[in-house]
Amino acid sequence: MPFAEVSTDIIGLFEEIVGAEHVIVDPEKRYNYSHDETEDYSFLPDVVLRPGTTDEVSRIMRLCNEHSLPVTPRGGGTGLAGAALPIEKGVVVSMERFDKILEIDELNLQATVEPGVITEVFQNAVKAKGLFYPPDPASRGTCFIGGNVSQNSGGPKAVKYGVTRDYVLNLEVVLPNGEVIWTGANVLKNSTGYNLTQLMCGSEGTLGIITRIVFKLRGLPQKSVLLLLPFVTNAEACRAIAEIFRAGVQPSGMEFFEREAAMKTIDYCEKIYAAKVTTSFPENMDAYLLCELDGNDDEVLMRDAERVMNVAEQFQVGEILFADTAAQKDELWKIRKNISPAVNAYSLTKSEDVVVPRANLPRLIVGIKEIGKQYGFNSVCFGHLGDGNLHVNVLKENISDEDWHTKIVDGIGEIFKLTVSLGGTLSGEHGIGIAKKPYMSIAMREANLAVMRGIKLAFDPKGILNPGKIF
Amino acid sequence: MPFAEVSTDIIGLFEEIVGAEHVIVDPEKRYNYSHDETEDYSFLPDVVLRPGTTDEVSRIMRLCNEHSLPVTPRGGGTGLAGAALPIEKGVVVSMERFDKILEIDELNLQATVEPGVITEVFQNAVKAKGLFYPPDPASRGTCFIGGNVSQNSGGPKAVKYGVTRDYVLNLEVVLPNGEVIWTGANVLKNSTGYNLTQLMCGSEGTLGIITRIVFKLRGLPQKSVLLLLPFVTNAEACRAIAEIFRAGVQPSGMEFFEREAAMKTIDYCEKIYAAKVTTSFPENMDAYLLCELDGNDDEVLMRDAERVMNVAEQFQVGEILFADTAAQKDELWKIRKNISPAVNAYSLTKSEDVVVPRANLPRLIVGIKEIGKQYGFNSVCFGHLGDGNLHVNVLKENISDEDWHTKIVDGIGEIFKLTVSLGGTLSGEHGIGIAKKPYMSIAMREANLAVMRGIKLAFDPKGILNPGKIF
Repeated sequence: MPFAEVSTDIIGLFEEIVGAEHVIVDPEKRYNYSHDETEDYSFLPDVVLRPGTTDEVSRIMRLCNEHSLPVTPRGGGTGLAGAALPIEKGVVVSMERFDKILEIDELNLQATVEPGVITEVFQNAVKAKGLFYPPDPASRGTCFIGGNVSQNSGGPKAVKYGVTRDYVLNLEVVLPNGEVIWTGANVLKNSTGYNLTQLMCGSEGTLGIITRIVFKLRGLPQKSVLLLLPFVTNAEACRAIAEIFRAGVQPSGMEFFEREAAMKTIDYCEKIYAAKVTTSFPENMDAYLLCELDGNDDEVLMRDAERVMNVAEQFQVGEILFADTAAQKDELWKIRKNISPAVNAYSLTKSEDVVVPRANLPRLIVGIKEIGKQYGFNSVCFGHLGDGNLHVNVLKENISDEDWHTKIVDGIGEIFKLTVSLGGTLSGEHGIGIAKKPYMSIAMREANLAVMRGIKLAFDPKGILNPGKIF
Repeated sequence: MPFAEVSTDIIGLFEEIVGAEHVIVDPEKRYNYSHDETEDYSFLPDVVLRPGTTDEVSRIMRLCNEHSLPVTPRGGGTGLAGAALPIEKGVVVSMERFDKILEIDELNLQATVEPGVITEVFQNAVKAKGLFYPPDPASRGTCFIGGNVSQNSGGPKAVKYGVTRDYVLNLEVVLPNGEVIWTGANVLKNSTGYNLTQLMCGSEGTLGIITRIVFKLRGLPQKSVLLLLPFVTNAEACRAIAEIFRAGVQPSGMEFFEREAAMKTIDYCEKIYAAKVTTSFPENMDAYLLCELDGNDDEVLMRDAERVMNVAEQFQVGEILFADTAAQKDELWKIRKNISPAVNAYSLTKSEDVVVPRANLPRLIVGIKEIGKQYGFNSVCFGHLGDGNLHVNVLKENISDEDWHTKIVDGIGEIFKLTVSLGGTLSGEHGIGIAKKPYMSIAMREANLAVMRGIKLAFDPKGILNPGKIF
């Protein structure tokens, strides 16, 4: 569909809506909105708007819809699939001024927030009241909670507590035509018409712009223990995961990383934080599991920790570290959360986010390494393996630009084919955006894509909202 | 949209697809498919088909779509909103032959089932392997699991474990045009395109016919305790619920029923099961809470039970019954689960299913009784109040037919207005169907309904699938 240009007249109308200080046309300032954390992608928008109210967003959308201007909504810019990049130029609507926590309702265990709140700020505000918002993406210190909803972010606690969508009760959304709706009600159960709330979650800003979010909250678990389990082989680490769950233990975190991820990240953290890492990672190991258990009862936690260790010891396992001080736990989590930045600092990467049924992980990880050999790339694997969700960072290193854009792309296609053949799919928590869009036909049939396009058309007949994403 | 008639030629084509023995034209046999458990509604279909395979469903849909024949999919016929009633006549597609549990995957904690499996049969099959499928509608002995998905059923365990949709990972669906899709993948996390799985859950058979379901399962809790807490007033029982959650306890059941519900149900159960009810329900009480705690650790359960009792004792409470034998627990649950049939045996009812934020329950229940006085009806209230989900059975008793269809309908409208003013909505777990459709504009704006209609159109351009439901 041909889009219109952003004319000087239109800029004037935008200034009337949001105020001139919130209309960014300066190219240098606009550049900040041209990229996220996906490879080296960059697309310069014609103009960036920073609305402050739902009504302003509504008026922007009405105007853009009328004039067929492409609109790309943007959160914290930490996405790994390029979903917030203005590939058709036009208008970026940055939600940075929607940064207020409107209410934390302790009686109903609910919170109402604007989408531009930093995830960690929200987590801490809730924690200060003895409550718990479990979704915890690695980018929590800079990502926006609205982006978490749009991409359906996860993080390490999803294995016990679910992903972002499991906490979304209700959304205020500005539709592409400027209409404002609430998708549901502030209730724990709802069978009143189609589930628009869940349809919005993970729709990557293509169906509407989220302007308010009602989350459900939980009570804060008071205690946790953390185990670092070193395994001689990747495949055995993966097998141990399935067995730990079969033993009836429900960890609140079950993270996996290869030795190379640990080593690169230790170096990176020592540099960034200017502090020596004190945890020792046993050598001659392929991979480590970081297993967290949480709850309110020391005895139950210790009993479960023992069950985890008993399962692990049925495999070729190194010395298990039981992290019992807060400092040691913090250090281990810091290493885990810095894997992605550390790997990116080492080399340009293509970051994949595949997910399979848990028991199929051993075949997945072995297959990925074989594909790497065949197509000539190294990869660093880590992720939330309790969920079956593996992050595969394919390293550019000294691969030529040409191969990076052709042969390696094909190799990644093979990873996705393997994933789907194992009952899995393309993305567990990062979304599709533009980075994984070319691979969608591996995961779903034309009939699925046709249904999705039909839904998109129902919301956005002119296709102005976040065009060119997902499918 | 004008629908075509089911001609003799069409019947012949149906016979080719499913076999003559599965094409029901005999009026008496068809009558069985004309009603569910919603009031005294009855709509006779022209023909009932009983396909046995996805391919047969696909061919039926293709034929009906081509010929503009209305199709109403049907599960166990236990619905309380009339969602499975063929109000436009035409074709009923009964899923009764889709009655196989295809796989219980113990390693991945998943199960694949056909939609015509009785919910209780599935629960028991899973339990036999030490696993747990928590959704537990009161009709579990006769309802179909596919109907549970279509209506997003709940039940008492939802307060801790979530509703049906929280267990659905992936669905095989026949679209109105006969195309067959899988909505997602068999994985715990999925950010790969729009969430068609969640869109199907609760869509009441209007978007497609579900032919296979992949559920996630949990480990089976080994122990439970059950408390019966009698309260002097309804409102105090409701207030106690919010306080129990604030005290950090997470019950696996938090059911509420008025004294009248208990008394009617005891009589009913003694008659039906021909056995005296031994539990005594303290007199001079307005309402009772049935609070279940489950887990694997006796000490933790006893400590939580004490916390529940301590909270309750801050209110005007009668003697608390601690049910410690299996027989006593069974009896209490039997009474709870028979409330709806008992009330229906006493009088024709309109059964409502409102849901509000938990802390607003006291105002809701007081308001409902005031509306009853004003409009001249009695009501029996019970339900899953831990979720804020209250069932309100409005009794016809000796109300005239005319008032029943006019004044009482208006009174129920007032209940819904009150519910929405308290941040709630029309249905927590029964769905909208035809029974609550006239009230949809109380819960949502025209823009919401327009979006839903747009989605419907994307799936079903001719509007042949379950026409006239929801909106």
